[in-house]
Amino acid sequence: MAPTVSKRSFAAAALLLKLTAAYLADDGTVVIPGAASYNGLNLVPQMGWDNWNAFGCSVNESLLLDTAQAMVDYGLRDLGYNYVILDDCWSIGRNASGYQVPDPVTFPNGMKYIADHLHSMGLKFGMYSSAGLFTCGKRPGSLGYETQDAEFFAANGVDYLKYDNCFNQGQSGTPKLSFDRYNVMSQALNATGRPIVYSLCNWGDDNPYDWAYTISNAGRMSGDIYDSFNRPDDRCPCTVNPCNWPGFHCSVLNILNKMAPIQSRTMSGYFNDMDMLEVGNGGQTDNEYVTHFSMWAMMSSPLLMGTDVVGLSPANLAIYSNPAVIALNQDPSAAAGSRIWRHECNDTDQYGQCEQSLWMRGLKNGDTVIALINGANSTQTMNASLSDIFLDARTAGTSKPAAQLEEMWDVYDLWANRMSNEEAAAILARNSTTAPAVITANSTSTTRYNTTAMSYADGLKANATALFGKKVGSVPAHGTWTASIPRHSTGLYRLRMAGSGGMGKRDEL
Amino acid sequence: MAPTVSKRSFAAAALLLKLTAAYLADDGTVVIPGAASYNGLNLVPQMGWDNWNAFGCSVNESLLLDTAQAMVDYGLRDLGYNYVILDDCWSIGRNASGYQVPDPVTFPNGMKYIADHLHSMGLKFGMYSSAGLFTCGKRPGSLGYETQDAEFFAANGVDYLKYDNCFNQGQSGTPKLSFDRYNVMSQALNATGRPIVYSLCNWGDDNPYDWAYTISNAGRMSGDIYDSFNRPDDRCPCTVNPCNWPGFHCSVLNILNKMAPIQSRTMSGYFNDMDMLEVGNGGQTDNEYVTHFSMWAMMSSPLLMGTDVVGLSPANLAIYSNPAVIALNQDPSAAAGSRIWRHECNDTDQYGQCEQSLWMRGLKNGDTVIALINGANSTQTMNASLSDIFLDARTAGTSKPAAQLEEMWDVYDLWANRMSNEEAAAILARNSTTAPAVITANSTSTTRYNTTAMSYADGLKANATALFGKKVGSVPAHGTWTASIPRHSTGLYRLRMAGSGGMGKRDEL
Amino acid sequence: MAPTVSKRSFAAAALLLKLTAAYLADDGTVVIPGAASYNGLNLVPQMGWDNWNAFGCSVNESLLLDTAQAMVDYGLRDLGYNYVILDDCWSIGRNASGYQVPDPVTFPNGMKYIADHLHSMGLKFGMYSSAGLFTCGKRPGSLGYETQDAEFFAANGVDYLKYDNCFNQGQSGTPKLSFDRYNVMSQALNATGRPIVYSLCNWGDDNPYDWAYTISNAGRMSGDIYDSFNRPDDRCPCTVNPCNWPGFHCSVLNILNKMAPIQSRTMSGYFNDMDMLEVGNGGQTDNEYVTHFSMWAMMSSPLLMGTDVVGLSPANLAIYSNPAVIALNQDPSAAAGSRIWRHECNDTDQYGQCEQSLWMRGLKNGDTVIALINGANSTQTMNASLSDIFLDARTAGTSKPAAQLEEMWDVYDLWANRMSNEEAAAILARNSTTAPAVITANSTSTTRYNTTAMSYADGLKANATALFGKKVGSVPAHGTWTASIPRHSTGLYRLRMAGSGGMGKRDEL
Amino acid sequence: MAPTVSKRSFAAAALLLKLTAAYLADDGTVVIPGAASYNGLNLVPQMGWDNWNAFGCSVNESLLLDTAQAMVDYGLRDLGYNYVILDDCWSIGRNASGYQVPDPVTFPNGMKYIADHLHSMGLKFGMYSSAGLFTCGKRPGSLGYETQDAEFFAANGVDYLKYDNCFNQGQSGTPKLSFDRYNVMSQALNATGRPIVYSLCNWGDDNPYDWAYTISNAGRMSGDIYDSFNRPDDRCPCTVNPCNWPGFHCSVLNILNKMAPIQSRTMSGYFNDMDMLEVGNGGQTDNEYVTHFSMWAMMSSPLLMGTDVVGLSPANLAIYSNPAVIALNQDPSAAAGSRIWRHECNDTDQYGQCEQSLWMRGLKNGDTVIALINGANSTQTMNASLSDIFLDARTAGTSKPAAQLEEMWDVYDLWANRMSNEEAAAILARNSTTAPAVITANSTSTTRYNTTAMSYADGLKANATALFGKKVGSVPAHGTWTASIPRHSTGLYRLRMAGSGGMGKRDEL
Repeated sequence: MAPTVSKRSFAAAALLLKLTAAYLADDGTVVIPGAASYNGLNLVPQMGWDNWNAFGCSVNESLLLDTAQAMVDYGLRDLGYNYVILDDCWSIGRNASGYQVPDPVTFPNGMKYIADHLHSMGLKFGMYSSAGLFTCGKRPGSLGYETQDAEFFAANGVDYLKYDNCFNQGQSGTPKLSFDRYNVMSQALNATGRPIVYSLCNWGDDNPYDWAYTISNAGRMSGDIYDSFNRPDDRCPCTVNPCNWPGFHCSVLNILNKMAPIQSRTMSGYFNDMDMLEVGNGGQTDNEYVTHFSMWAMMSSPLLMGTDVVGLSPANLAIYSNPAVIALNQDPSAAAGSRIWRHECNDTDQYGQCEQSLWMRGLKNGDTVIALINGANSTQTMNASLSDIFLDARTAGTSKPAAQLEEMWDVYDLWANRMSNEEAAAILARNSTTAPAVITANSTSTTRYNTTAMSYADGLKANATALFGKKVGSVPAHGTWTASIPRHSTGLYRLRMAGSGGMGKRDEL
Repeated sequence: MAPTVSKRSFAAAALLLKLTAAYLADDGTVVIPGAASYNGLNLVPQMGWDNWNAFGCSVNESLLLDTAQAMVDYGLRDLGYNYVILDDCWSIGRNASGYQVPDPVTFPNGMKYIADHLHSMGLKFGMYSSAGLFTCGKRPGSLGYETQDAEFFAANGVDYLKYDNCFNQGQSGTPKLSFDRYNVMSQALNATGRPIVYSLCNWGDDNPYDWAYTISNAGRMSGDIYDSFNRPDDRCPCTVNPCNWPGFHCSVLNILNKMAPIQSRTMSGYFNDMDMLEVGNGGQTDNEYVTHFSMWAMMSSPLLMGTDVVGLSPANLAIYSNPAVIALNQDPSAAAGSRIWRHECNDTDQYGQCEQSLWMRGLKNGDTVIALINGANSTQTMNASLSDIFLDARTAGTSKPAAQLEEMWDVYDLWANRMSNEEAAAILARNSTTAPAVITANSTSTTRYNTTAMSYADGLKANATALFGKKVGSVPAHGTWTASIPRHSTGLYRLRMAGSGGMGKRDEL
Repeated sequence: MAPTVSKRSFAAAALLLKLTAAYLADDGTVVIPGAASYNGLNLVPQMGWDNWNAFGCSVNESLLLDTAQAMVDYGLRDLGYNYVILDDCWSIGRNASGYQVPDPVTFPNGMKYIADHLHSMGLKFGMYSSAGLFTCGKRPGSLGYETQDAEFFAANGVDYLKYDNCFNQGQSGTPKLSFDRYNVMSQALNATGRPIVYSLCNWGDDNPYDWAYTISNAGRMSGDIYDSFNRPDDRCPCTVNPCNWPGFHCSVLNILNKMAPIQSRTMSGYFNDMDMLEVGNGGQTDNEYVTHFSMWAMMSSPLLMGTDVVGLSPANLAIYSNPAVIALNQDPSAAAGSRIWRHECNDTDQYGQCEQSLWMRGLKNGDTVIALINGANSTQTMNASLSDIFLDARTAGTSKPAAQLEEMWDVYDLWANRMSNEEAAAILARNSTTAPAVITANSTSTTRYNTTAMSYADGLKANATALFGKKVGSVPAHGTWTASIPRHSTGLYRLRMAGSGGMGKRDEL
Repeated sequence: MAPTVSKRSFAAAALLLKLTAAYLADDGTVVIPGAASYNGLNLVPQMGWDNWNAFGCSVNESLLLDTAQAMVDYGLRDLGYNYVILDDCWSIGRNASGYQVPDPVTFPNGMKYIADHLHSMGLKFGMYSSAGLFTCGKRPGSLGYETQDAEFFAANGVDYLKYDNCFNQGQSGTPKLSFDRYNVMSQALNATGRPIVYSLCNWGDDNPYDWAYTISNAGRMSGDIYDSFNRPDDRCPCTVNPCNWPGFHCSVLNILNKMAPIQSRTMSGYFNDMDMLEVGNGGQTDNEYVTHFSMWAMMSSPLLMGTDVVGLSPANLAIYSNPAVIALNQDPSAAAGSRIWRHECNDTDQYGQCEQSLWMRGLKNGDTVIALINGANSTQTMNASLSDIFLDARTAGTSKPAAQLEEMWDVYDLWANRMSNEEAAAILARNSTTAPAVITANSTSTTRYNTTAMSYADGLKANATALFGKKVGSVPAHGTWTASIPRHSTGLYRLRMAGSGGMGKRDEL
């Protein structure tokens, strides 16, 4: 059978038993160690910023700290973007004890200094290495030095490790070879005692979505993204998972399509990483970036900004700052959406591409989100029937028809309350208070949210206004939602059972 | 050469020899250990019920016992459905000795209690685990605990183990890696001394049909089924074996088509498991369910009901209860049918699909069963010529033309005697005596059968009325059988040599 | 680079040196051990008979001896068919010492008795086992018993081992796993000291053509053949090498097409085995059998008759008995032909197939053989230009144009002298002396040949009449050979340089 | 992320630190060992001559020395062709100590004699072996004898090893198996202390471009080339990397197309080897050879002449002698070009092929080279827009538009100054002084160059006339370059920023 997660409570049982391989959580739930995140971390997808897409090897202390300050000032930290990740090219070698030596020119105060600063700003610090002889940028890799490097990260206050796959000495070709190689660092990180999110970057090689859950918190499932909506690139030859050559220069739709067959392998504590966001880098239209951001949220991919945050445009800040879409990503269901259908179309674009698709995802509170993607070259009317949307409910293995088909559903457009460019410009000018200190169920802002004050999980329970978009219509029982979707854009809708008033799912479902 | 099974008797020889690697069976036949089932069990496909498709993790003692009672009351046990299999989500951890702890809330009397009850009802008890760190439902897996878990199963009176593939720590990628992993449990089960049917559930990964025969009794050959006749689903991307990503949400026709290239790897003692039956779960039409059930029987797949048995509808009980089709499944030939031809057609359905095919299978008594599948969107006239049906006989490697072409064949429709909904409703109301206590060659019931009284093998020898359907015509020598097959349905016919009067095959064949 | 064989003589050098890893052959040539056959055997493809295709498990002493007698009486032995191979199903177990026990009913006098008889008739004895727990027929396999079984074969006078792949305990998936498994028997056979031809039957699994040369004398490169010219069968899903599922029920053209990409991996001492011949089994037309036999010869496949030899029809004896075609197979060049072109055509047959192709092969004496295959449903005119035929010469890496294009070539039809049915019938009636006791350069028979009197290599040097077919025309320099080829047939022509008078190739080539 | 190379200087840092795993280079740059060539060799692609394509096993001392003399006389050595590589068939066995014995007939003075002669001529000596039991020509292979063979090469003054893959005993199937096998020789060569360029020839098997960088200097990425522009050959069945069967007889376009997905895996110190050049062997037109040579240069493939150098035609000498194209190959950027687009076209040739493509490559000095390939059967007008050419700059991950689009670019045709046949004929007649003893920035020759006097790197810095072709036009900002490209030919253009006057790139890029 396919992996699933039980939600039963074992409170009573746990009180009666002396279990060594399970323990009692604070709320009385029996927890099987590792069964929700191998190390207890990253129960919802990580969010933050990584310098690679925009800066590559051009890294230094001020880039990190200036970006961190902008993340605070622009309200991005409060929205949940809390990891600041230094990617490749920070090391210049190893010392006589085998420990890495950070570049003293670009990081004159060392790494602990940066970690301390970030922590003082309410942010977390991520670093990078590779499970190979070198990193991709030809700096020292960690293969054979896992213990020293894990100790280095822990000693320097690092909270997150991105672990790459370059120069891996041919230690690949079966899942076992890759598992064993990546597991060494997993054990080394655990041995430090410091909680460190462990994020694999082996490009889907040897199918990490099939084995990485028990040793890590996230894993790349594709070759590197590049800033294109759907242009096929010879360097990313693979269009479906599993691949035999991951490549790089993979477009947004290329990566998204590779997620379809493996979506069940995303789960709380382990997220299939669709790579860093390109929003802001100039290679796509606003509608394309909206699609990119929407679908990364829909699929519970990590949301790691991959652009120059300090210099963000108002429009791009507005995309990164949509709390209704982020709440979808951070939903406690911690699952990836399913593609219901995809078909080729005839109105092709400059690259000869045309595809349309419907995706759905059920959420913790009983709501359902759908995405209608229009990859045609012009605006198209698209339909999503309840019978399509609730296909999985229909095929859940019982003879009862899906109860969802009998209900009326209110439809909320998750982009309807997108922040205006004017509001964004004011924030970017650091002239605006970006987030309320406290979030309550009565907060009325639709564009700002503060996860420090109230987590997305709590905000969703409380029906916080900012997290639900704007109601734009309803679908009757057995009905169909119809929308006009522009070229290379996406309609992203939250369906809430009519009458539930945002008060949670009805008992019978 | 492809695997085959010799049927020669070595009685005389065995009397003369002291063989250590072969022994003398009761009937004087020399038996090479392991050469018909590695552990002597499951010589014909297992039958029974598994809770997963309909109930998932919502399992408890009363579900199992209530279902067992319905299986008895509805005559399903007597028809041969004798395994009651508890799937995932029964364990909440391990105790200090490493033994699993059943959930005391859902299973307050423990597992032995259930086994005893089932045994007292004439049923057998199956349980579940995974060859991984966790089960698919994130309960403790058996990897590394094979000995303790095998002992647990044996001590609790378990007769059958379904053994899954989730969270397998990357121990896959070559047949050897998977064989070695699954073999540990095989040896552990054997070491308990209790006869336990061992059923692999590794989704066809690393081609178990190529290596599992010597260590197990059955093996899944595809990703999980879902309740659809032929809808392609992105989560089941593979359409032919071997696959590189088994996935799940595989339709009936998807799985059936994956059986075609591997059909020779089904044999007595090891059955390619096409997954649990969806009949009764509401996602298919009656004709589609008839096709599903017919072809699972035709291919010697295990017949495991995957629905809410207690709440079965009359129509679905009638499908599950057809003794003529079950006798096909339980035929001592213990082989899978061959697909003679398959072609795409033009009258496509809502999913753009249209395929038609002819399958055949030779049986122990010399009869031949054919299946004509019509996947078109409307009723079609379909033909099966004797030269197609007996293609393999023609190409058996001798210069003689297939003798079968020279014969006239009587055609029996295996669905012609399907139980009426009225009869089924009476049974479901528990107002009907469901099965005769004794079956004889003179029993005239066409809808009931009692395998306790007379096995299918014996019933077939005795030409028991219930096992042969209804004669609907004949095919002359070199002739063709023509039938009108409804949309998404199957004609399932047993061809008996005319004049043989059901008395067994003629000598010359 | 691709493998090649040097033909230089190192005589002078060898006299000067003390080499431990090379030795001086009788003709003064330095021989590097293993560089022409790993064990010195099978320098040209093996010929003989194997019972499987026609008799399967129905084997016994008299089948072997009666067939052997027919092979002698029909002149087949003298034509070179000298191995009599007993396939599966001869063993009923192992004794206390782990040695196999032949079935005393079917082989009452044991195996040595048969070997002795065959040897006394001028024939050799082949036996069978599998590199697995069982043979394909579920008799004891040799995995883990290689030493005992090799000793058994040597002690019983066995000259040849066919070694199958069934029930291999998952020891496959990389070339290394298969190499290591098959190498155990290779070493065990060598250790016996008896010369035994070692023929792998692992169906092309893990690409034996890439690694088996150094441990064996032949290796199957496809799933099992069946008696069909070109019917696609679902059980043989693969149409090109390498395959990921070899299957069985592979047609003649299916197997032939799989040879095209791997033809360079056939060489003296190791032959890619296209499986036993189906000629005589009734599933193909005479033209189809001619194509089958021609191309097995062309590709240096072993020529193992797979039919009931005793009951051969005149036409089929005539096919098996064509010395001109056998001489092609046994040419000392010991190489497989190359496919120059293949294209689909429109005149499809009952299976919707239509393909045409041109193959060529250069021979030791400078002649070139071409095959024009017409898979269309009717007679077609086909062309072979010298520039196509000598494509490889043109692209051999020097700037000189292929000298062959400048020559006139005489064309000999290798089937023109096919034995008449009348002559064949007389032979089958054992009323005819089948072969001359002595062959000389002046022998004029075109239908009979005696390899005991003169090897094919010597006969080719001597321009023996029987080995060259009949001259049917010429092709001028830069010209094209045109022929009318019937439906599903093959034109097989030997091109000899005009004026060479069969006296060997000219110096400049 | 994909591999990249940092160019930062760590001079200051290095002065402050005691690094054991990095060292200070002469120019004060911190160097991480292995991060630019694992052994410090081959920072730009190797150039030279290998005898295989034209002479195969027909090798001897005079062939090597005569060719070497011609390479000197024709100016080829001065152009950079400095390796003289003896391929297969030089050994006749091993002596009692396990050392190889060169053929005393063909190499009467041994190998050291040849090495000394070549060194005295300013050339280097390459030899050959295979990571198998035999070489492809069935001479002794090095598997198991790596230490002795490395010692032999070092002791004989060998500077370069080509290391093949034949008869590898099945030690393949995962990258790890191949890595481990090839690494043994890598370590053995290092242990000799002699600098030896180590060039793998495993045909792309197990993806050496994914793991060979850390143990070797170059690696073949395809099956063997043959002298055809684009004819598909059944023996080279694979058309895209990774392949599962490399084969041989691969055409120029076949190999080029396999480079597209792996181009990022070419880097300084490790070059993807597209196999030896066929220019001069007679199988292609002049335009086809120009394409072949241009694209091998464009992709930083080794440039190894594979023809009879002594007998070169004037036209072919002119191709091999174009310093502007060689300078592209030897550019210090040491990277392979990217294919921007490729499409099928309708004007097919005799093989039914028609493809057109645009490739680009950025160089160290800020210039960009583009190649427009016309595989159609007639002359075609082709376009390259700046937005296509600078696609990667556009998608580099920052929001700034590519600055390159805003510039005017001068276009230099790299073939415009091709040596005349008259000049070439004079050189071939050894009547001409082929190269200036000294190159300066003021040298005006466009057809001759002397790398001994001035390296290509220095010549490019100095804007040496011979290295830049001829200006043939300009492209304005946001413009498109249009050219008429003959059948089966290539336009190869160097774009230089207008106004930069060849003085290097502008600061802002």
